[in-house]
Amino acid sequence: MTADALIHEVTSSPVAADIRRALDARWSGGGEPLDEISRYALLSPGKLLRPLMLVASAEAVGGDREAVMPAALAVEYLHAASLVHDDIIDGDDTRRGRASVHARYGVADAIITGDALIIRLFGSLAECPVPDADVLSAVRILARAGDDLCRGQMREALLVPPAPGALGSGLAAYLGMAALKTGALFRGACQAGAVLGGGTPGEVGIVAEFAEHTGLAFQMYDDLLPFLGDPAVTGKPDTSDVSNLRPTFPVLLAHREGGPAERRRIERVLAGGLAPGAALAALREVVMATGALDLALAHAQEEVRLAKSGLGVLPSAEAAGLLGAVAELAVRRDR
Amino acid sequence: MTADALIHEVTSSPVAADIRRALDARWSGGGEPLDEISRYALLSPGKLLRPLMLVASAEAVGGDREAVMPAALAVEYLHAASLVHDDIIDGDDTRRGRASVHARYGVADAIITGDALIIRLFGSLAECPVPDADVLSAVRILARAGDDLCRGQMREALLVPPAPGALGSGLAAYLGMAALKTGALFRGACQAGAVLGGGTPGEVGIVAEFAEHTGLAFQMYDDLLPFLGDPAVTGKPDTSDVSNLRPTFPVLLAHREGGPAERRRIERVLAGGLAPGAALAALREVVMATGALDLALAHAQEEVRLAKSGLGVLPSAEAAGLLGAVAELAVRRDR
Repeated sequence: MTADALIHEVTSSPVAADIRRALDARWSGGGEPLDEISRYALLSPGKLLRPLMLVASAEAVGGDREAVMPAALAVEYLHAASLVHDDIIDGDDTRRGRASVHARYGVADAIITGDALIIRLFGSLAECPVPDADVLSAVRILARAGDDLCRGQMREALLVPPAPGALGSGLAAYLGMAALKTGALFRGACQAGAVLGGGTPGEVGIVAEFAEHTGLAFQMYDDLLPFLGDPAVTGKPDTSDVSNLRPTFPVLLAHREGGPAERRRIERVLAGGLAPGAALAALREVVMATGALDLALAHAQEEVRLAKSGLGVLPSAEAAGLLGAVAELAVRRDR
Repeated sequence: MTADALIHEVTSSPVAADIRRALDARWSGGGEPLDEISRYALLSPGKLLRPLMLVASAEAVGGDREAVMPAALAVEYLHAASLVHDDIIDGDDTRRGRASVHARYGVADAIITGDALIIRLFGSLAECPVPDADVLSAVRILARAGDDLCRGQMREALLVPPAPGALGSGLAAYLGMAALKTGALFRGACQAGAVLGGGTPGEVGIVAEFAEHTGLAFQMYDDLLPFLGDPAVTGKPDTSDVSNLRPTFPVLLAHREGGPAERRRIERVLAGGLAPGAALAALREVVMATGALDLALAHAQEEVRLAKSGLGVLPSAEAAGLLGAVAELAVRRDR
């Protein structure tokens, strides 16, 4: 299957269409400024992967799509909140090809909107018409995921040089951060979906494993994108990481694989001072020369293989197939 | 009873001591930066009024103190989160006499810590050992309260001149904002406490009424404090509102009560340009001259009377008495 066909399979699936319909219906217009800004943050052209993973996990264990839909919207609220606040922290003025929330509405309203979206995560979750005990389990799962997400965001800031060992022993710290920052919400979405869908503990464990590997693959490939794509396609200034002097996955690999000259070059770039475009170009050369680009891609593809390896035993082959396609998508997209 | 004795009665009550012990035990030290910053935000010398109201409401309807303690901590998390994010928005570098969270740890970590505290609100709530249906009701109640709180924060920004009608018809808008910004969390804490304590719908309604009036009294009196106290006592730079050109309750009353000269003077101050100290002094003169200070105090006291009027029918007179003391405290404190 081509990459385009794969993206189409996922984002045009009946599940995705139902999620988009539910999101549009819930945020149909009117209301106060808080609603308007929330709508702007939510109804952007994203792929809705986390809600999709939640619904597919629920259906994979025999659950009902409509019954878990409020939870599917809920995980998108948390994701959107983290993007809104992340863009403030990183000073990113564009997101998916348009003004980020704080660039358009100001920092104050962006902070408050993110807060409101986090709160609505739990309000929406509590609307699911499934047994109370399952809803409460999902509340606990997503509270844990949200906490991990915050830990990952805070750790990310600590990985920037000259933090001790930011580059040298940075790969392990990086993978720990990625597991929290991206993996936790993927995992929370899949676990919550399986629990709300009435899955057995074994089934919940299988989708959790799937989600962790898929989350790692996504984060690894996200870090590769600035070295592969161009900003007109990714819709995000791909110098954000380098502007924030953040050593990402391929850069850390290049630092490990390279000789003294390559290491010094990376260290000089991440010490700051270069214009973002020049810094990215310099890193691209080192990442290519050391073979780190291919290596990073291979790592991400291995995570996808691991993600898909356990899905075969789930009751619904169709929903499990959709989960597999989401994992594939992690390493086959241009933004 | 003197004001000091009243404050002592509330903040040294066995309930308050138990809450402080539970909070200290939960945040005893160690952990990652996120835990350290959360501890800094939480273990400041506040009065813990919202947890106190939650526990007292639970006990007032016959509930168990220990069983609702995780929910009591939960409402303090939301309150602390709103202060951390509010201080960023208002640019306030001190809070309760020490550095605010963003002043000490930076804006990025302050945003993330506030997010984590909001998430923990729900995680902690889900720990209460009471029937699942009651925990879920409390989740819904506090999600609603949190959403209202955000609406109130956003509306507050809209009340600043030259927003249309910010001063002229501002009193109604102000009271609506205050009901959301302060009243919603007071109401949520009391409602959640009564529900988790196994109260009847009638009892839940009584504590909700109590909380709304008490919340209004608190907000009204908070607005009076800059005109009464001095910063060394309030522990907050009392020029925050005037620096942010925010027309507060006594100022709005003075605008309504005053003649054309007083109105023009208020409008000139709130148009900006004066140093904060001079602006506050000018507003103080108008607020005194128009009788708005006494009027604002009388309004706040009337809300306290209304708050206490329904408490007599609650099963536990002792817990109801503590709620009444909290309401009294609203208008008898120096910070």
